[in-house]
Amino acid sequence: MAKRVDHIGILVSNIDEAIRLYRDCFDAKIDKIETLPERGVKAAILSLGQGANLELLEPLPNSNMARVLEKRGEGLHHITFEVDNVDRELSHLSERGVELIDKKARPGFEGMVAFIHPKSIRGVLVELCQKA
Amino acid sequence: MAKRVDHIGILVSNIDEAIRLYRDCFDAKIDKIETLPERGVKAAILSLGQGANLELLEPLPNSNMARVLEKRGEGLHHITFEVDNVDRELSHLSERGVELIDKKARPGFEGMVAFIHPKSIRGVLVELCQKA
Repeated sequence: MAKRVDHIGILVSNIDEAIRLYRDCFDAKIDKIETLPERGVKAAILSLGQGANLELLEPLPNSNMARVLEKRGEGLHHITFEVDNVDRELSHLSERGVELIDKKARPGFEGMVAFIHPKSIRGVLVELCQKA
Repeated sequence: MAKRVDHIGILVSNIDEAIRLYRDCFDAKIDKIETLPERGVKAAILSLGQGANLELLEPLPNSNMARVLEKRGEGLHHITFEVDNVDRELSHLSERGVELIDKKARPGFEGMVAFIHPKSIRGVLVELCQKA
């Protein structure tokens, strides 16, 4: 069971320019910015007044994410649902025949996470995250 | 200033199948379902426990949205920020050189809305909505 949309992942070619854009246009604030070599990105969490955050992702050179950016261009990348227990949700989804990218929860940018294959969710890349 | 993410728009080829998928996988509930000929879609609002909703959009035959679906396939389509006053935000954005799709607020699925051109927001189609 998904409790809420935690964030929306957005692929950008230049994270500093994108942060300025979301700040100037929508008054978004930076909560956190970090380079995550294991994910092949520089990532920033932007928050609005309340509710779901935005996660900007700039691919590191020669990463898989750099190839995704080259192929698809900038834009919406994934949606992340907060759940109480990622591993329990993964087994629930797996029993329903949903194809998983991560078979079990792994440490993510914020808490434990796992990705679900977009082919099972009608073209949408879904991430589950568990914060507690 | 964006107050919060109101919803994430998702393009689907079959809204009934997509509703079942989000219900069975993530326990999403249908808040509203309607055919909107002026937008060329059948649309459904799905809610999770709290926070941002999901808006599923199935294009009507021969609509512009049907052509978008044919070209890009199913997947994430737009993100909607709630604001206090859409027209005020549009003039703020316009002064900053942001390209608008809608020059002024118009009635949407829920309240007054306007779309901003994705070329100004690094490939992301942004909708503003005003609920009160």
